[in-house]
Amino acid sequence: MATTALSSTLTRSELWRELAQQLRVDSIRATAAAGSGHPTSAMSAADLMAVLLDKYLRYDFSRPGDPNNDHLIFSKGHASPLLYALYAAAGAISDDELLTLRRLGSRLEGHPSPALPWVDVATGSLGFGLPVGVGIALAAKTVDPRPYRVWVLVGDSEMAEGSVWEAFEHAAHWRLDNLTIVLDVNRLGQSGETMHGWDVTSYAERARSFGWEVLSVDGHDVEAIDEAYASALETTGRPSLIVARTLKGKGVAAVEDKPGWHGKVLPDPQAAIAELGGRRHIRVEAAPPRPGPPERTYAASSPVLPGYEVGTQMSTRRAYGEALAELGSAREDVVAMDGEVSNSTFSGLFADAHPERFFEMFVAEQQMIAAAIGFDVRGLTPFASAFAAFFSRAYDFIRMAAISRASIRIAGSHAGVATGEDGPSQMALEDIAMFRAVHGSTVLYPSDANQTAKLVALAADNPGVTYLRTTRADTPVIYRPEAEFEIGGSRLVHASLHDQVTIAAAGITVHEAIKAALQLAADGIYARVLDVYSAKPIDREALLDSLRATGGRLVTVEDHWPQGGLGEAVLEAIAESGLSLQVVKLAVRGLPGSGTPAELLHAASIDADAIATAVRSLLDSVPGQ
Amino acid sequence: MATTALSSTLTRSELWRELAQQLRVDSIRATAAAGSGHPTSAMSAADLMAVLLDKYLRYDFSRPGDPNNDHLIFSKGHASPLLYALYAAAGAISDDELLTLRRLGSRLEGHPSPALPWVDVATGSLGFGLPVGVGIALAAKTVDPRPYRVWVLVGDSEMAEGSVWEAFEHAAHWRLDNLTIVLDVNRLGQSGETMHGWDVTSYAERARSFGWEVLSVDGHDVEAIDEAYASALETTGRPSLIVARTLKGKGVAAVEDKPGWHGKVLPDPQAAIAELGGRRHIRVEAAPPRPGPPERTYAASSPVLPGYEVGTQMSTRRAYGEALAELGSAREDVVAMDGEVSNSTFSGLFADAHPERFFEMFVAEQQMIAAAIGFDVRGLTPFASAFAAFFSRAYDFIRMAAISRASIRIAGSHAGVATGEDGPSQMALEDIAMFRAVHGSTVLYPSDANQTAKLVALAADNPGVTYLRTTRADTPVIYRPEAEFEIGGSRLVHASLHDQVTIAAAGITVHEAIKAALQLAADGIYARVLDVYSAKPIDREALLDSLRATGGRLVTVEDHWPQGGLGEAVLEAIAESGLSLQVVKLAVRGLPGSGTPAELLHAASIDADAIATAVRSLLDSVPGQ
Repeated sequence: MATTALSSTLTRSELWRELAQQLRVDSIRATAAAGSGHPTSAMSAADLMAVLLDKYLRYDFSRPGDPNNDHLIFSKGHASPLLYALYAAAGAISDDELLTLRRLGSRLEGHPSPALPWVDVATGSLGFGLPVGVGIALAAKTVDPRPYRVWVLVGDSEMAEGSVWEAFEHAAHWRLDNLTIVLDVNRLGQSGETMHGWDVTSYAERARSFGWEVLSVDGHDVEAIDEAYASALETTGRPSLIVARTLKGKGVAAVEDKPGWHGKVLPDPQAAIAELGGRRHIRVEAAPPRPGPPERTYAASSPVLPGYEVGTQMSTRRAYGEALAELGSAREDVVAMDGEVSNSTFSGLFADAHPERFFEMFVAEQQMIAAAIGFDVRGLTPFASAFAAFFSRAYDFIRMAAISRASIRIAGSHAGVATGEDGPSQMALEDIAMFRAVHGSTVLYPSDANQTAKLVALAADNPGVTYLRTTRADTPVIYRPEAEFEIGGSRLVHASLHDQVTIAAAGITVHEAIKAALQLAADGIYARVLDVYSAKPIDREALLDSLRATGGRLVTVEDHWPQGGLGEAVLEAIAESGLSLQVVKLAVRGLPGSGTPAELLHAASIDADAIATAVRSLLDSVPGQ
Repeated sequence: MATTALSSTLTRSELWRELAQQLRVDSIRATAAAGSGHPTSAMSAADLMAVLLDKYLRYDFSRPGDPNNDHLIFSKGHASPLLYALYAAAGAISDDELLTLRRLGSRLEGHPSPALPWVDVATGSLGFGLPVGVGIALAAKTVDPRPYRVWVLVGDSEMAEGSVWEAFEHAAHWRLDNLTIVLDVNRLGQSGETMHGWDVTSYAERARSFGWEVLSVDGHDVEAIDEAYASALETTGRPSLIVARTLKGKGVAAVEDKPGWHGKVLPDPQAAIAELGGRRHIRVEAAPPRPGPPERTYAASSPVLPGYEVGTQMSTRRAYGEALAELGSAREDVVAMDGEVSNSTFSGLFADAHPERFFEMFVAEQQMIAAAIGFDVRGLTPFASAFAAFFSRAYDFIRMAAISRASIRIAGSHAGVATGEDGPSQMALEDIAMFRAVHGSTVLYPSDANQTAKLVALAADNPGVTYLRTTRADTPVIYRPEAEFEIGGSRLVHASLHDQVTIAAAGITVHEAIKAALQLAADGIYARVLDVYSAKPIDREALLDSLRATGGRLVTVEDHWPQGGLGEAVLEAIAESGLSLQVVKLAVRGLPGSGTPAELLHAASIDADAIATAVRSLLDSVPGQ
């Protein structure tokens, strides 16, 4: 509801038109001040957002943490000037701050980010905001029932992203009638016309075939927009899509519906503002959130983690599932999801124990990660699992999770050539590199079941993106159930007073390294084995201590490509120490095929024999040893 | 056409049913011999593939390189036993080889790979084979007109992948009536029922809304299948989808349509084979390829690359576009595609010069990479470009490109914080890590326009996945147009007789490093700058030579996260040398926001000032310096 003096003299429709012009003018002013940005992409959606802000958005801007606030996500993040102009109209930011757009240190970044308290997730990678919106809407329909609505502004260009269709599928599957997409069909992408141009029917038909309610409007007719929003609110049992035909750069003849003006400041901002009728000062008080439950406090106790007897065989992937199920019993905030392989990742054990907090995401890894981010936005503690290799399908979403300051936990099973007969398409050999190169991430790679269980519990409270890599095959339990581990830690699993070489290993190669050390000891050669289960952060001090104790002789061994994995993490950690080193780095170098895990570890020269050979070579190469 | 004695006594339909049983039996035999695999996923599609092989597939198995052969892609790669049973029925592999399934060294891997000459691409990552099929079909409709047809067997589970819908969009957009999907709706995924179960209408409606011809059949009724294939052949102007309702594990009561049998050997293989009527020995001679043009030889001459005057300003992204356009003039096999940002990546210059060989892939990075792989399958030389950050959207496809032994070239613009005001969602800060950790990949990061042009030309003949990272901003031209570069090379760009420190830099940081070296020289401190433009393979010898010349003192500086990038590549390269080092590693450590490139380079401590400080700290830390 607008509250300026001006508004009292206007009909509601007139006010919306005025407000839309204000949003356009402010988008132009902000981008002109910045010297860059996307004013024309903001201008096409101004009428749509004006009506939304004044009549439909239920949001207390003074309390962004109100759990019943609506959620407004600009999936077309490049329309950020419009979002910031909305915030200014709502009184959430000052006009002075509006004009800091894109400056160093400003909260008003080129694309929206949670540097602003009203922004749930960073956007700007097209096709990302919508699936996160699905996750936020899903939370309110399941584990944390609330009256809020999720509004997502989607651009027509981003409808080309497959991730959008994963979102369409899931929103319909989960019957998310609390989700409304506002699709801004301004016809023009960055470099040219979109695939469908103004063929709004093409979008409508696709959405209907996916089970959505569809409302088509002229995106500059505020009364029609009003009716569409009203219809969306009345839709039950399915999500709604408002397909709005718009003009990019609407209202300024120099750029309106003209190609070549994507991401450019208007040619004459002052003339454009004049053409739009000059500055307005409309202040809108958004309607308060619908009454709903207060902020929820989730019951939490210490999990009774499973314990495994030393010497027995147990896969780390099964230990993941068993620990997660126990964690779910101890903590009501824990939710889990899987990419249709819960019988392989063993997240199915959580599903059996807590079906109301388990979400089958089918083979849609991007939507799975987005749902996890959405649950995190809503204060839950999500764990997502799949074969480790298939998280590469969602790498952009994981990257964006980090920029969104989200805390999510990802468990990838079937790491490395130890996966065996299924062949290379199923083997994660790049996942450590991929997850290490995520801002603020944690990368864990346990070697036994007890360690896995402890790390699962630690992951629950760990900020940022936490990745846990598990192995398909059964491996020996080497740690006692009481053993404690920490993020950033390591563990010496084999050592003597006479160690000549440090073997840094993790996961499956810890077992190979122990075998190698035992073989070597029989020949009077002493190598210690450091279990570097935390690849990021890494235990620099323990590495340095061990290397000092072993004359700087180091073998790293990993079931991963040589790039970006454990070996490079170790080298990076010790690089600035100035320690004099002799290093052999073992990793998977050739393209594997099928075979048994043992055959493939051997073929890749990362098994016990290869490690023993590497240790011997280090000692042979030093005169006097 | 089947050619056994048996076949002469059977009607065609009876033969198809017998052949289908043979394919089932052989799938069971092979997986039983292997002790693992996916027989039930093979059995559901056996009737569909039997009719295809005997009547519709136009393929000379003795000449897999025949350019007019049809293409058969198992996008549901886990049905590999069926594919191998088809090859056996076609006489392409022996029964003995069939029984080597999943063994070390066998060409018959758990999921299909081009270790077999009839396999175009590795599959097994769901949602990948279909988009590649789109690329192969697109080639025949555009740059290399041919009569072949592309048949893709798709599983119902993989319809959940967004990449599938990118393929549906593009196939319809390009009117690929030479593409037919055989959708095996066996209802059961790995861990449970698919989202849509046997609701075949849901698939049909979605496909129709995307503009496809849709034919629905009982997937075990060979006559109906025959009719559907015939209709698909007659469809013009649009791709066709055969939606086949099937039973997983069809024909063996112990597993037929039963959950819990995904990826498992049958409980009693001998009983199952008996239930299916025992072994058959039907041999099918597939119809020969349709007559078409002979293998094409593309005109090729040395490209007249653009040259830039030393000291002028030119962005490497523009140099990419200018060089690519020239390369296209010199070589008819070069094709280019872009993710709807060709005015930013400057691939638009290629589009202007060679519109018939440029493909607008819109904002669908997965389909873009898949199309590039498809063009490579057809012997073309594809270059794909987009903002570097957005290739993270297609990381799984890039991983699968490597497993497919594909040679593709990827150019990513807008690298690092030097991207500036657009903010972190648009900045590639993990791309070097991501591309280095791809099997057999090449990672290039030029610092100036002439170097870029030369590397573009070299990329054209480089095998595997070649990545070229470019920078948004104009930077000084530092190399003469005549300068030569090589993959795996480096270049000393600033050196003296008295150098005390090596600065290893690439791309934007080369310029910062040169500035730092000049600043330091004014104070009598001498640092050399090594332009490590080839991050993989890396110029180990030059690095070692330089480090020996500078007392092992090293500063690495990169516009990238600290993990997996240039710094780690350098450390990895020299790790095994045993050289005693003192290292400072500069990289982007905090999450950037918006700002000018210079501000953000400074804020990240990777600018000239930070480099100079690092050099001084190395010298200060050594007694006597």
